Amino acid sequence: MPFSPSPADRFTFGLWTVGHRGRDPFGDPVRAPLDPRTILEQLAALGAYGVNLHDNDLVPIDAAPADRDRIIREFQRTLAATGLRVPMATTNLFTDPVFRDGAFTSNDAAVRAYALQKTMRAMDLGVELGASIFVCWGGREGTEVEAAKDPVEAIKRVRDALNFLCEYAIDRRYALRFALEAKPNEPRGDLYFPTTSAYLAFIETLDHPGMVGVNPEVAHEQMAGLNAYHVVAQAIEAGKLFHIDLNDQKFSRFDQDLRFGAESIKTLFFVVKLLEESGYDGPRHFDAHPLRTENADGVWEFARGCMRTYLLLKDKARQFRQDREIQALVAEIRGSDGDGPPAAYSHDAASRLNGRAFDRVELASKRLPYERLDQLVVELLLGVRE
Amino acid sequence: MPFSPSPADRFTFGLWTVGHRGRDPFGDPVRAPLDPRTILEQLAALGAYGVNLHDNDLVPIDAAPADRDRIIREFQRTLAATGLRVPMATTNLFTDPVFRDGAFTSNDAAVRAYALQKTMRAMDLGVELGASIFVCWGGREGTEVEAAKDPVEAIKRVRDALNFLCEYAIDRRYALRFALEAKPNEPRGDLYFPTTSAYLAFIETLDHPGMVGVNPEVAHEQMAGLNAYHVVAQAIEAGKLFHIDLNDQKFSRFDQDLRFGAESIKTLFFVVKLLEESGYDGPRHFDAHPLRTENADGVWEFARGCMRTYLLLKDKARQFRQDREIQALVAEIRGSDGDGPPAAYSHDAASRLNGRAFDRVELASKRLPYERLDQLVVELLLGVRE
Amino acid sequence: MPFSPSPADRFTFGLWTVGHRGRDPFGDPVRAPLDPRTILEQLAALGAYGVNLHDNDLVPIDAAPADRDRIIREFQRTLAATGLRVPMATTNLFTDPVFRDGAFTSNDAAVRAYALQKTMRAMDLGVELGASIFVCWGGREGTEVEAAKDPVEAIKRVRDALNFLCEYAIDRRYALRFALEAKPNEPRGDLYFPTTSAYLAFIETLDHPGMVGVNPEVAHEQMAGLNAYHVVAQAIEAGKLFHIDLNDQKFSRFDQDLRFGAESIKTLFFVVKLLEESGYDGPRHFDAHPLRTENADGVWEFARGCMRTYLLLKDKARQFRQDREIQALVAEIRGSDGDGPPAAYSHDAASRLNGRAFDRVELASKRLPYERLDQLVVELLLGVRE
Amino acid sequence: MPFSPSPADRFTFGLWTVGHRGRDPFGDPVRAPLDPRTILEQLAALGAYGVNLHDNDLVPIDAAPADRDRIIREFQRTLAATGLRVPMATTNLFTDPVFRDGAFTSNDAAVRAYALQKTMRAMDLGVELGASIFVCWGGREGTEVEAAKDPVEAIKRVRDALNFLCEYAIDRRYALRFALEAKPNEPRGDLYFPTTSAYLAFIETLDHPGMVGVNPEVAHEQMAGLNAYHVVAQAIEAGKLFHIDLNDQKFSRFDQDLRFGAESIKTLFFVVKLLEESGYDGPRHFDAHPLRTENADGVWEFARGCMRTYLLLKDKARQFRQDREIQALVAEIRGSDGDGPPAAYSHDAASRLNGRAFDRVELASKRLPYERLDQLVVELLLGVRE
Repeated sequence: MPFSPSPADRFTFGLWTVGHRGRDPFGDPVRAPLDPRTILEQLAALGAYGVNLHDNDLVPIDAAPADRDRIIREFQRTLAATGLRVPMATTNLFTDPVFRDGAFTSNDAAVRAYALQKTMRAMDLGVELGASIFVCWGGREGTEVEAAKDPVEAIKRVRDALNFLCEYAIDRRYALRFALEAKPNEPRGDLYFPTTSAYLAFIETLDHPGMVGVNPEVAHEQMAGLNAYHVVAQAIEAGKLFHIDLNDQKFSRFDQDLRFGAESIKTLFFVVKLLEESGYDGPRHFDAHPLRTENADGVWEFARGCMRTYLLLKDKARQFRQDREIQALVAEIRGSDGDGPPAAYSHDAASRLNGRAFDRVELASKRLPYERLDQLVVELLLGVRE
Repeated sequence: MPFSPSPADRFTFGLWTVGHRGRDPFGDPVRAPLDPRTILEQLAALGAYGVNLHDNDLVPIDAAPADRDRIIREFQRTLAATGLRVPMATTNLFTDPVFRDGAFTSNDAAVRAYALQKTMRAMDLGVELGASIFVCWGGREGTEVEAAKDPVEAIKRVRDALNFLCEYAIDRRYALRFALEAKPNEPRGDLYFPTTSAYLAFIETLDHPGMVGVNPEVAHEQMAGLNAYHVVAQAIEAGKLFHIDLNDQKFSRFDQDLRFGAESIKTLFFVVKLLEESGYDGPRHFDAHPLRTENADGVWEFARGCMRTYLLLKDKARQFRQDREIQALVAEIRGSDGDGPPAAYSHDAASRLNGRAFDRVELASKRLPYERLDQLVVELLLGVRE
Repeated sequence: MPFSPSPADRFTFGLWTVGHRGRDPFGDPVRAPLDPRTILEQLAALGAYGVNLHDNDLVPIDAAPADRDRIIREFQRTLAATGLRVPMATTNLFTDPVFRDGAFTSNDAAVRAYALQKTMRAMDLGVELGASIFVCWGGREGTEVEAAKDPVEAIKRVRDALNFLCEYAIDRRYALRFALEAKPNEPRGDLYFPTTSAYLAFIETLDHPGMVGVNPEVAHEQMAGLNAYHVVAQAIEAGKLFHIDLNDQKFSRFDQDLRFGAESIKTLFFVVKLLEESGYDGPRHFDAHPLRTENADGVWEFARGCMRTYLLLKDKARQFRQDREIQALVAEIRGSDGDGPPAAYSHDAASRLNGRAFDRVELASKRLPYERLDQLVVELLLGVRE
Repeated sequence: MPFSPSPADRFTFGLWTVGHRGRDPFGDPVRAPLDPRTILEQLAALGAYGVNLHDNDLVPIDAAPADRDRIIREFQRTLAATGLRVPMATTNLFTDPVFRDGAFTSNDAAVRAYALQKTMRAMDLGVELGASIFVCWGGREGTEVEAAKDPVEAIKRVRDALNFLCEYAIDRRYALRFALEAKPNEPRGDLYFPTTSAYLAFIETLDHPGMVGVNPEVAHEQMAGLNAYHVVAQAIEAGKLFHIDLNDQKFSRFDQDLRFGAESIKTLFFVVKLLEESGYDGPRHFDAHPLRTENADGVWEFARGCMRTYLLLKDKARQFRQDREIQALVAEIRGSDGDGPPAAYSHDAASRLNGRAFDRVELASKRLPYERLDQLVVELLLGVRE
């Protein structure tokens, strides 16, 4: 059956996504908790590749060591039985009241120490489950009260924490890479590192920048009205796309975590096209929630929909490459007839360029058939170009 | 007279700011053009330190060489007469139709070459006028039609251009540093490098990263609903705040370029406090426009207001430092009593941290009197704390 | 040829839309002015039904009476030759500096009087050309400086103006209905009547509410992050959809005026479906601009694309009605099995309702397969149903 | 002590505001539940006038009748002891899973009936406690899946519900007025009636429009980037400001419910000024939450801050009226020297106006010193006038 996912598609879900119980700021949970075994069996049946988790999605924050071990063993058995992988793990540094003012950026040194400990242990857990990517989302690293926290100091604290954790991974010989995930706001009024770009800039200042990349989340960038396609492109260009969170969202809104493709059909087409054509071979992780209106069955419709829309858009990308009219327009548009800038700087090249005569009016008169091309893309998306 | 600006305050305006004629997408100009001499004399009389310019603010894009030289000589005479400086210069790569699809990222190689030539010449002009900072704002570097331009290629093209221009500055022994200015959208649907952070990340990939920093514009970050204070903090922490554009704006709107402090009193208080306390010694540049409702006189009220509000907020920062109740709260809030994370990584330090027992409930019970502190800040701003 | 527009589709364009020269706040015009005759001939050739205009799109603001008459006669001849209609006319109360602080809400009584005169004359012109709808967009009715204008008084002034103009239409026996068009901001910092709903509320307070309806503009509502489909639905439910401006836009941005369907495919599908199924028989007016990157030919690609995407979405609406799986889901979802509220109030009905026992838990357990339905809609839009 | 609240100031809080436990989508509660008695005693001690409530803030949704009565008697005793009033009551139609797809707009007729019953009972409760205002906020009246619900039908359903409830109030001789509260989104993707204006328009279509007004919430309008001052002005002009929810928020974000004045100092100054000068004599209700970082003590700092900032802004409004320079500017700006539009329509008046000669250029040259006036307002807010 076409557009049916298989593990080769590398689709993953978080335990917390399909397991989301529909609680929100104005409402109580609507769905019963799902035990991990059910989640894994269902995802495997649907064709997913793997499952990701926060430490406390699996092991309660106050579990005794023996319980922890038992839970993990059971989970590993289910992984083996279902064939699912755990490519990514992360820590929950935001639910418990201890983190109410942040974890790595908390003003309380003991909280910072605790956050570090909790992350080390979550790394241990992740590695135990086979994860090779460790995502860091600082859900409480921010503020509503600027006088209370120093945003310069906050960056330094996150740097110290990341440097420490990289050393820990090296020390333990963990084959883990870190992927930093940004968000502009919610639950804090403002979060530090509000965009993927803020993390890209920060990574270069770490002791082991090669171990650290980003995990852009489509909806998080859209909360700031940013173009998710461009964001992913910058991460790829920087060689830093270590993981990706796929979902959907209306611009400039609360964190909606909608089913992939529920809203931004055109932008997500370009995101999928870029992922597929860039050589990115990491997981396609859906970090979204079923709507609170769904019951237990709807959860799996949601999961199915995420994957199916991805595959549909991937197929549209193939059509785009094979559409003659589109390709002819792209060739015309991107093909340069004029003499370009020098390939490299030299004193002479600069002098020649400085002396060159340009006909501004003529250059401005070249046709740029962008409306036509964009219309063809819309028609391709609407399925009316064979 | 208190709160009256003097050149020591390093306030600057662009020729294009006070010279803005009030044209907008729905309206014709309302003010007559101001000649540069008038602008300089007025700004000097008001206590400004300097004036900044795009090449074509002073020299028409199609000026003959002799006219160019005459215009510059005249301008230099007025600079000398008024004592004003030109700390920053930039190129206009957005007004002319030739740049309708971008300059450095244009699909037309000849346009890219022309943009480079125009920028080299603008650098020559800037240096001739004494500028030490060269701002690059890529006003047309973006797209509305994703199929038409490749966002990965776009980054590479901007990199090539910047590397070329750095070499040019070195070759010419120009004491110029570049400051890159981001904007999320407008006039293009989406601009590449939509935030200051996007440029911070990019700079590290250049051949001469030390020569290149950022020029955050308050209102541009606010267009994306980002916290301008946090943005400036990241630039400062990275050692990359080479210039700053001060103005104001409501979130998630068209580019309003309002008088500094017209809207975001609290955020701008923290921006000013940070600038003043960080050791930043560059210009305080107001990149704003008088309202279209103003006549020629109102232009100078606008300029006076920008500077005066800056000085008022600077004085509030002093009060903040001297307010005992505020300082006591800050000391309590930021002062850490607990044992923090290890100062540096070592195998033993990690083991000790891993074995440490934390009392989550107790840690979560520490008071964080942020509402009180924030209220005191609001009252300080309202002028009711002596 | 399928999806080719014909006059029966009632597609209209403003002279100012296809005639837009690509000027924006950062750029000069890129296209030569188009004379009305060319516009009409091209639009007729493309299958449009009509053309709309501001007074000054056709007649310069300072035209002598003889010139005015000549221009109009010529225009009427072209209308006759092309078979195009002018269903809607409007006044330009925003371009000229005289309106820099508003027209009907200007603080200057003489400006208010002039605005009224100009609108009366534009009504005369519209009627002369056969228009039956007169749109009012108060492009400068707002402020950036709250102390300068009273928002309560502003509403009263607009009411006085509208009441006057209704009387004028009655007095002149004009078969004109007014359609009020809202916008949240731009060019003013804030515009009064920021949303279509604000006008719906206002209309009921007029002397002749039956003569006045609304002209929702898709992109204007999207600037405020509002759901254009819901907005149009409220206008229809109120019997007040007198005209509609179709275009597109990313949320929470400057006024982009993109080609219809360029961005919000899913939302616009529901807008088109609603228009087609509601019995709305007015013009489908495209109030958008060709991209500034286009040359003169691209203008017509733009116009063609607007109409074609509308027809494609209209056909998707037909498919939606005929898709058995979708219809079965809709029937299940919308079909109510339970006992509803009383049809009308009576003391007894209220008492019975008050005494009725509800099983909250059972009611909460009914399945709502919304994820599935939404996925089917996405797939229908992507053209992979049937 | 100046700026200390007293009951004469008519400040009210919801039980759910100071009682908010700090739960959010990413975090567990951080504060213990507060019993109503504690809340009332503390609010009374702080100088509040009253307290408002949802039915289930006081009486659990599944309370037995005897428990209900006992709880209410106890609450009434505490009201009497503290002297606090309950001016407003409302129903919770959003927390329980039964309302997961809305209450009055649910697709399930039985849910709609249950919502009506629950509201009738909440009205009974409100009246029993002395409330004269009944707020309706349809927290789940919206959708994420347009195909699932009909937005035209949704309006009709809300109308039926409101008409029924008005009849019920009349039938019971309740001296209750309804105040409808809008919100653009969250917790639903889109809420019907997204703005206060949408309700203003809707009210006119009810059977008893005189009984129904609006309850604008500052932060809800700001979520859509709308100007809260203008919104309140339209409600006042329409005679429909029956209640108001005061709080604060950054634009285009999740529902932050910040302490009044925490963010939008200038806008809220104009809101307070308008409330105080308009003759509005209803409650000043703070619908905000203490930050999640606060412990139990911080709750009262939060409440104190809301009231104190209101009083500070009210005093600024007095200063504004007494500031000679400001008043002179306002008089100049708002005072009209020119001849205005006719006071009323007549054929002759229209003819005279049509024939009048206007000098556009001269009208456009009148000075509008808005920058100066706005700067003075900012300085007044900063406390540096006089």
